[in-house]
Amino acid sequence: MRTRLTCEIVSIGNELLIGRVVNTNASWLAERLTRLGASVRRITVVGDDLSEISSCVKEALSRRPSIIITTGGLGPTYDDMTMEGLAIALGRRLLVIPGALEMVRRKYEAMGESMTDAKVKMARMPEEAEPIPNPVGTAPAAKIVAGGTIIYAMPGVPRELEAIFKEYVSMELSELSSFKTAELTYRIIGVRESALAPLISRVKELYPDVYVKSHPKASEEKPWIEMYFSVSHRDEAVARRMVSEAAEMLKTLVVETYGSKAFEESMEEK
Amino acid sequence: MRTRLTCEIVSIGNELLIGRVVNTNASWLAERLTRLGASVRRITVVGDDLSEISSCVKEALSRRPSIIITTGGLGPTYDDMTMEGLAIALGRRLLVIPGALEMVRRKYEAMGESMTDAKVKMARMPEEAEPIPNPVGTAPAAKIVAGGTIIYAMPGVPRELEAIFKEYVSMELSELSSFKTAELTYRIIGVRESALAPLISRVKELYPDVYVKSHPKASEEKPWIEMYFSVSHRDEAVARRMVSEAAEMLKTLVVETYGSKAFEESMEEK
Repeated sequence: MRTRLTCEIVSIGNELLIGRVVNTNASWLAERLTRLGASVRRITVVGDDLSEISSCVKEALSRRPSIIITTGGLGPTYDDMTMEGLAIALGRRLLVIPGALEMVRRKYEAMGESMTDAKVKMARMPEEAEPIPNPVGTAPAAKIVAGGTIIYAMPGVPRELEAIFKEYVSMELSELSSFKTAELTYRIIGVRESALAPLISRVKELYPDVYVKSHPKASEEKPWIEMYFSVSHRDEAVARRMVSEAAEMLKTLVVETYGSKAFEESMEEK
Repeated sequence: MRTRLTCEIVSIGNELLIGRVVNTNASWLAERLTRLGASVRRITVVGDDLSEISSCVKEALSRRPSIIITTGGLGPTYDDMTMEGLAIALGRRLLVIPGALEMVRRKYEAMGESMTDAKVKMARMPEEAEPIPNPVGTAPAAKIVAGGTIIYAMPGVPRELEAIFKEYVSMELSELSSFKTAELTYRIIGVRESALAPLISRVKELYPDVYVKSHPKASEEKPWIEMYFSVSHRDEAVARRMVSEAAEMLKTLVVETYGSKAFEESMEEK
């Protein structure tokens, strides 16, 4: 029987470490991976630095996740070094992979351009990497099997990452994943988080497997808390039932203590 | 002579790992830390899990950065466990810190509320932590000195994090930091990144200390690349000169090869 997929995301790029770019790639991926029933355990951001990339990937591998997705560092410039970092982490040679070279060559041929060193660089991958076509950009992605972990090396340009994930990675993962995640959210108005804390603890005692998160969304005029409930289970119906029972229990406790005005706004299911 | 400050950011919260929240706290902090002349080396996101938090902080400490900033997990609920995770990572006891308890007590007194267990929890910190007042929320932040590293444990609510950083942490760091960062950006229109790559390499040969980043911003009608140059130096004038010389050199190379239409839009200095 298959267990729940665990994932790590490794985001590569100095632009993330200097705060010029918000890491929307990681949250985009995390949301989709969660929906596929996978559990994202860690997101790590490192710079365009060979030893940082390789040691970060080595550390991730040592935690034995089912999947590692790297983003960024696949382009033609000097600071695109993800493939080299992966090769070092895996102790494999960095080679021009014929299938990848063909993908790059065809892209540029269609634009009427010939190959250069910078373009060949995008076809250099760790030995035994399987190139994945990039439908909207020039740098191919790669799939690398390393022991019990599958590494997907993906581009950092959001529309390229998203296209490759949708067309390729998500299919593979949904075949591997046997879990489904059910989620539910609602708002509680005018009750402080410190007052909710003991009520949430009572729900957690009865539903230890349901993840319950209170997210304070303070505003001056109308403080409110977003409550989020989720659970992953092989049987989607079981997941839905557990999540809705836990959410109902908290609602009942809040209404008993603070009255129904705490639920002025309608319960939204997601 | 003081060296350049190095920083790591540890973002704590399941909401980040399931993609419900984009990690804008990390990019906000990274931008400000960079402006203060510090070098952010790594950003790690872990869930609300005691062993994940403590091992992640231990790993960060082993890389000996000047500063570690954690965000999130300071609130009153069961899944707020950053202080406990820090205590484990540091091998210190978790204690109610009198100064922190007084901050929390006063906050609730002003709202006409008495103390509860959930509220006292927010005053529990690793031994020898120095509580930092939270001007816009109830959970105090903390400063913890651990060997050569200063850890700041900050809240995850953005307006609380930002207020505490501005009022307290940034002052301390600008006193510690002796570096200034100069940055410069411009756009190159209609030239592919693979064609820019060899030109950027020539700039890097002459200016190895200047960080040069090409950031492709593809759009269907008008592809363009954002070029970013930065350097940190003790002497701000030197930093400014280096960054502008490197940027000029690339501009000249691009104009020689592709003509001045690659710079249709004005050069913006940041």
